[in-house]
Amino acid sequence: MSLTKRDLVTVDDLSNKEIESIFSLADQMSDTLYEQSEVCKGKIMASLFFEPSTRTRLSFEAAMHRLGGNVITAMDVKATSLAKGESIADMARVIGSYADIMVIRHPWEGAAKVAAEYAGIPVINAGDGGHEHPTQTLCDLFSLKKEKGAIDGLNIALCGDLKYGRTIHSLTYALARMGASIIFCPGDGYEIPDYVVKKLTEEYGGELRKIAANDVPSLAGVVSGDKAELDALYLTPSTPHQPALLTDIGMRVDLKQGVDALYVTRLQKERTNTSDDDVKKSYPVIDKKTLKGKEFKETLVMHPLPRVDELAYEVDSDPRSIYFKQAARGVPVRMALISMLLGAKNIEMPDVEAGKASPPIYQREFGARCHNPNCAAVHEARYIDPKFAIVNFKPLTLRCVYCERETQPKYMASTKWHQGTIENKLYHNVQSHLLAKIDTSNMLFFESEEDAKAHGFKPSRFAEKGKKGGTDQ
Amino acid sequence: MSLTKRDLVTVDDLSNKEIESIFSLADQMSDTLYEQSEVCKGKIMASLFFEPSTRTRLSFEAAMHRLGGNVITAMDVKATSLAKGESIADMARVIGSYADIMVIRHPWEGAAKVAAEYAGIPVINAGDGGHEHPTQTLCDLFSLKKEKGAIDGLNIALCGDLKYGRTIHSLTYALARMGASIIFCPGDGYEIPDYVVKKLTEEYGGELRKIAANDVPSLAGVVSGDKAELDALYLTPSTPHQPALLTDIGMRVDLKQGVDALYVTRLQKERTNTSDDDVKKSYPVIDKKTLKGKEFKETLVMHPLPRVDELAYEVDSDPRSIYFKQAARGVPVRMALISMLLGAKNIEMPDVEAGKASPPIYQREFGARCHNPNCAAVHEARYIDPKFAIVNFKPLTLRCVYCERETQPKYMASTKWHQGTIENKLYHNVQSHLLAKIDTSNMLFFESEEDAKAHGFKPSRFAEKGKKGGTDQ
Amino acid sequence: MSLTKRDLVTVDDLSNKEIESIFSLADQMSDTLYEQSEVCKGKIMASLFFEPSTRTRLSFEAAMHRLGGNVITAMDVKATSLAKGESIADMARVIGSYADIMVIRHPWEGAAKVAAEYAGIPVINAGDGGHEHPTQTLCDLFSLKKEKGAIDGLNIALCGDLKYGRTIHSLTYALARMGASIIFCPGDGYEIPDYVVKKLTEEYGGELRKIAANDVPSLAGVVSGDKAELDALYLTPSTPHQPALLTDIGMRVDLKQGVDALYVTRLQKERTNTSDDDVKKSYPVIDKKTLKGKEFKETLVMHPLPRVDELAYEVDSDPRSIYFKQAARGVPVRMALISMLLGAKNIEMPDVEAGKASPPIYQREFGARCHNPNCAAVHEARYIDPKFAIVNFKPLTLRCVYCERETQPKYMASTKWHQGTIENKLYHNVQSHLLAKIDTSNMLFFESEEDAKAHGFKPSRFAEKGKKGGTDQ
Repeated sequence: MSLTKRDLVTVDDLSNKEIESIFSLADQMSDTLYEQSEVCKGKIMASLFFEPSTRTRLSFEAAMHRLGGNVITAMDVKATSLAKGESIADMARVIGSYADIMVIRHPWEGAAKVAAEYAGIPVINAGDGGHEHPTQTLCDLFSLKKEKGAIDGLNIALCGDLKYGRTIHSLTYALARMGASIIFCPGDGYEIPDYVVKKLTEEYGGELRKIAANDVPSLAGVVSGDKAELDALYLTPSTPHQPALLTDIGMRVDLKQGVDALYVTRLQKERTNTSDDDVKKSYPVIDKKTLKGKEFKETLVMHPLPRVDELAYEVDSDPRSIYFKQAARGVPVRMALISMLLGAKNIEMPDVEAGKASPPIYQREFGARCHNPNCAAVHEARYIDPKFAIVNFKPLTLRCVYCERETQPKYMASTKWHQGTIENKLYHNVQSHLLAKIDTSNMLFFESEEDAKAHGFKPSRFAEKGKKGGTDQ
Repeated sequence: MSLTKRDLVTVDDLSNKEIESIFSLADQMSDTLYEQSEVCKGKIMASLFFEPSTRTRLSFEAAMHRLGGNVITAMDVKATSLAKGESIADMARVIGSYADIMVIRHPWEGAAKVAAEYAGIPVINAGDGGHEHPTQTLCDLFSLKKEKGAIDGLNIALCGDLKYGRTIHSLTYALARMGASIIFCPGDGYEIPDYVVKKLTEEYGGELRKIAANDVPSLAGVVSGDKAELDALYLTPSTPHQPALLTDIGMRVDLKQGVDALYVTRLQKERTNTSDDDVKKSYPVIDKKTLKGKEFKETLVMHPLPRVDELAYEVDSDPRSIYFKQAARGVPVRMALISMLLGAKNIEMPDVEAGKASPPIYQREFGARCHNPNCAAVHEARYIDPKFAIVNFKPLTLRCVYCERETQPKYMASTKWHQGTIENKLYHNVQSHLLAKIDTSNMLFFESEEDAKAHGFKPSRFAEKGKKGGTDQ
Repeated sequence: MSLTKRDLVTVDDLSNKEIESIFSLADQMSDTLYEQSEVCKGKIMASLFFEPSTRTRLSFEAAMHRLGGNVITAMDVKATSLAKGESIADMARVIGSYADIMVIRHPWEGAAKVAAEYAGIPVINAGDGGHEHPTQTLCDLFSLKKEKGAIDGLNIALCGDLKYGRTIHSLTYALARMGASIIFCPGDGYEIPDYVVKKLTEEYGGELRKIAANDVPSLAGVVSGDKAELDALYLTPSTPHQPALLTDIGMRVDLKQGVDALYVTRLQKERTNTSDDDVKKSYPVIDKKTLKGKEFKETLVMHPLPRVDELAYEVDSDPRSIYFKQAARGVPVRMALISMLLGAKNIEMPDVEAGKASPPIYQREFGARCHNPNCAAVHEARYIDPKFAIVNFKPLTLRCVYCERETQPKYMASTKWHQGTIENKLYHNVQSHLLAKIDTSNMLFFESEEDAKAHGFKPSRFAEKGKKGGTDQ
C-alpha cells in the first residue's frame, strides 16, 4: 500500500500504519533537513488559502521549499475569481493542471473533499471550516510520539474551546484510534459537541464517564465555579493490534498515573458571536499555578497556536511546554506527507491492516439532503448531488461524505417501483420492516411526505410511523 | 528575427510566423514539461497584479517555475506604493531593476504599454482594463491549432458578452489575421462594439453580413426572442501568404460545413452596472440542448474561464468540451513565450514576413488628446504626452498608441508657421486640402478652435468646415 | 568579528567597518549578479510585511532569489493570525522555526527588535513604524560611496519631510557617523525633530548652525516664503579614524564647494492628518530650475522612492539624477547583507574598531516605562518588561531599547533597601546626589511619587526636587 497520488482530507484517510510511516519519514527528515532539496525538485505545490492563515500556509510552503520544490500561492482568494462566481470544482480542475499537489484551506466544510474529487492531483486539507485540519492533528500526534515514545495508553487532557476548535475534533478521533484516553476540560459553554462524543463511543468503542471536578483538583480550578463536573472519556481501544484493552478502572487510578499531556486551545472568536468580556470571565487559563498539581508533574503542555490569553507567557520557559517545538515539527511532518503523496518517497508498509468495512454509499439527485448550511456540497449544489454514507440503519442515519454532518430522513422508497405497475410507486416509513428488504443500491430517501409525493410516490401501508401494517389511504 | 528582449502588449506585437514559432516551442515543452527546469534558471519574473486574477497569475508563475526560474509577486497592489501616488513608470523602472521579465495586470487600458516603455526588461500584458489580454488569446489559438490542425478557414462562433470581454476582442483580431471566419452570437445588449467590427473590416479585410437567426437555429435559440438577427462576419484574409481567399460564399454553405468552435464567455459583471436579474433573463446559456444542432457535431466548446452560469456543468463530460484542456495549455504556451522573450530559447524564423507599413506617429504636449477616461496615458498625463498613430487621413483619425481608442480632431496647423511671419500662425479645418500639404512630422492637431486659439493660432481661410477658401476670421 | 547570526535592527547595529565590508561584498555581487545562485541554496527567507510595501519586499525577495535561496511571504498580515491576537514574540518563534532568516516590516516602533529577541534566526528590520529602516540607509550610503568614492567630508542636503520620514532619521545618524555634513531643508512644518538633532550633536559631536535662506539661494526658493531661515548642521566627526575634523568654517565656504547630494523625500501622508491642499502649497518641489544653482553643479539627486510630486519628472533624464540607480542597488546590498547574516559569505574584518562603551541597561517589571504609544514593547507589555539604556545621568535620561524614545523619570530608589530595615525603603529625587551612590544594577526608577508609594516606598529627605536634604515627612 502506498500514499502516492492519494488525498488527505480527514485523518481517517490514513490508517494507523500509514500515520506511523509518515512519522518515521518525518523523523528522518527532521534530522537531515538541509539534505532533502532534491526530493521534490521540479514539482509545484499550489497553496490555496480562502481563509487567512499565515502559520499553516508558511509551514506548508517552507516544507515544500526544504524538499526543493516550488510554490504557487493564492491567499485571501475571496477577492479573486471565486468572487466572480467560480465553483470549487472549476478552480480545482484548472489549478490541478498547473501544479503537482494542492493544499487548500476553505471556510466551507467538505471543500477539500470537493477539490480532491476534481483536481486530478493529490489534495491536502489545510482546514475546511469547522470540519477538519488533519495535518495539525498529525503534527500533534507526532509531537506526542516523539516526547512519550508511543500514543497508546496516554492520558490526554483537552482544555478550552472544545466546541468550535476544529483541531480538537480531529485530534480526539485520532487519539481514540491510537488508544489514548481523553479527559475533557472545556470552557463554560464550549463543551465537546454530542456528535463528537457519539462518534467516539460508537465508532471507537470509547466509554464516557462523568467525574466530579474535585477528582482533578488542578483542572477543577480552571473551569468556572458553576461547573461541578468535568467530562471524562475513557476509551477502550477496539483495534485488534492493541493488546491491552483499558477496562473499567476508576478515575483516581488513572490520574494517579498522571496526565501525559495538557492540550490547550484558544477560543475560536471568529466562529462565535459572544462578546469578549463574557467569554473572558469563564474561559480557562493555564498558568504556573495550574501546573503545580501532582498529576501534571510530567505533563507536556501543548497548544496548536496562535494563543491569546488562555496560556500564560510565564509557562513558556517551563520545560514541560512544548508548543513551540510542536509548531516547528510541522515542517518535517508536512515534508514527509508531501513527498509521500507525490510519490517522491515511499516507505514499505508490509503489514496491511484489515480495514473496517466501508459503509454503503447513497447518492441521488433528489430526496434526502445535507442540512449543514456551511457544507461545501450544499453551496455547490448546482453540480454536486447529495452523497451520504449510510452509517446506521436503526435509526436510519446518513452521514454527508463532504462535511460528515448526519441526517435522519423519515421516508423511503425503492427505485425498483417501475418494474411493477405505477401503483407500486409507494413510499414507506424508514422504521418499517421494509427497509431491510430493499437492496442498498435501490434505496431512495425522502425528507418528508411532501418530498416523496412531489416525486410521484404515494404512501404505502407502512408510511405511518411505527405502524406495522397501514392502508394505502 | 527574434523575440528576445521584446514585449507582448497586444497580439499585434507578434507576426503570424512568430505566433507559429511560439506554438511550436509550446508543443515541444508540453511533451517534456518536467525537463525544462534549466531553461530559465537564475532568472526572476516579477508578477504584478493590480487587479485580482488568481488563474492568470498562477498560470504565469507555474510556467516560470517549470522553467526553473524564480518569481517575485505583488498582488492586489492597490494597497501599496501605488496608493502612495506612485506612477506606473516609476514602478516599472524600479521593479525592472530587480527582475528579468515582468508580467503586469492593471485596470487601466494601455498600462502594460506604459510599463513596457520604462521597465528596461521584457513586459507581458496580462490584461489591461478592457483593452487586451494577449496571452489568453495565444492560449485560445494554440488550443484551436492543436485540435483542428490549423486556424485558417475555421468557422468560429463567439457567444455571450462580446461587448466587455477583453479576451474576445483580441481573439477576433487574431482569428481574422489567421484567416478564420467569425460568427457573432451576443447576449442582448452585449453586441460586439462598432470599433471592433470597423477594425476587422478595415484592417483585416473582413466582410460583414447580417443573417437571419433561423439560418443557425441552435444558436438562435440561445439569444433572446426580440433579437431577430445574428451578426456574422466573414473574413476575406488579406495577408499574402494565405493562398485561398474566401470569396463571397453564402451563409448556409458555411454552416453546412459546421461550426468548428463555439467560444463562450461569461458576463463581465464587474464592468457593468446592470442588476443581476435583468442580465440573467437574456444572457445566452450553452447546454446539452444547444449542442444537439447538426452544425455543432464536431464543434469544440471553449471558454476562457471562470464560468458562471452561461455554460452548464452537464457539458463538462461532453468530449467536445475542451475548456479545461484550454486552461491547462496556458502553462506550456506561457513557458514558450517567457523563454523566448528572455532569450533562453530561440527558434529560427527564416521566412520574415513583409510587414504592413506602420502608420505615422503623432506626439505633442498639447492639442489633440485621448478621450478615454480609463486610458493609462490619460491617468499618467503628468509625464506622458498624448501619442497617436495616424491611422486614417479621410476622415482624419488618430489612434492612441496606449489604449488604441480613436479620436478625430477637427483642426490642424503646421509647426513650421514660425518660419514665416507671425501672421502665418494659422489653423485649418482637417477636411481642407491643406492636410495633404503639411509634412506628417510637422502636423499639429487641435481639439477645438478654442484649443488652437489658446496656443496662439488664428483661423485661416480653411478653418471653416468644407469651405474651399474662407476668410481669416 | 563576523556578521553571522546577527540581527540588523538599526544602523547602529553595524560598525563603520562592517558597513564597509557589506559594501565591498555588494560591489562584487553587483558585478556578478547571475553567478551567486549557489550562495544561499537551500536556505529560506521569511518575508513578513505587516504594512504594505511592494518595493522593499520585492527587493529583498529578488536578492534572496539571486542568491539561490527560497522565500516564504506573508504580506498584509493584519488579516491573519495577528488579528487573532497573536503576539510578535509567538509569531517570531514559530516562523523562526520554519525559516533561516527573517525580514520584517511592522507599524510599531521596536517591533523588529522584539522579533529579533525571540526568532532564534537573524532578523532584518525592513521598517518599524517611524523608527528605522536600516537597509534603506545602507542602500543610500552605498550609492553615495559608489558615486563619490567616499562619504567622509561630503555635504548632503536633505529636503522635504524631515519629520516623519523614517529613512531620513536613520540616514542622518549614519552620515554623521561617517563624517558627512548635513544641510536640512525641510518643508514648512516638516522640520527635523529636536530629538534627532540632539542625538546628532550629543552622540556624534555635530554642531548646529542656523543660516539665512539667502546663503543658499536655490534651496531658499524651495521653502515657503515665511521661512526666513534654513537649518544647517555641520558635523565635526568625532571618530578617531577620521583625520581631518571640520572646523568652524563659514557656510559660504562650504557651499562654494557645492552640495554633493540632494536627498529628496516625499511627504509621509499616511502618518499625518493634514489635508492635501494645505500641504501641497508649502511642500518643497525639486525641478530643473532648482538644480540650476551653482552649488548643485555636481550634485547627485537622490530619493528613496516612491515619489509623488516633490521631484519633477523632468529631472529624470538629468545625469545628476541617480534615484533609479539607487533603487536598483538595493538588490546587491541586500544580497550582501543576507549572505553575511546567514554566514554564507564572510569578509575578513581585521581591524576591529574600539567600540563606544555601551550604556548601562535598566530593566524592571514596574516603575519607569516607555511613553511612546506606538512602541512595540508597550503594545506587548503582557510579556515584555520595560527596558532602557541609561544614556545620561544629568539629567537622568532613559532610552527605550525597543523604540529608542527617551523618558526622564523623576524618582528613584535602590533595590537594596530590603537588606536594611523596612524603614529604609525610601525613594529620592533623581536630581539628588544619591543617584551617584546607587549601583547601576540596583537602581529603581519611578514615574511619580504615587508610583513609588504604590510599590511601598516612602519619600526620603531627598525626595523633593532640588532639595539637598529634606525630611522623611
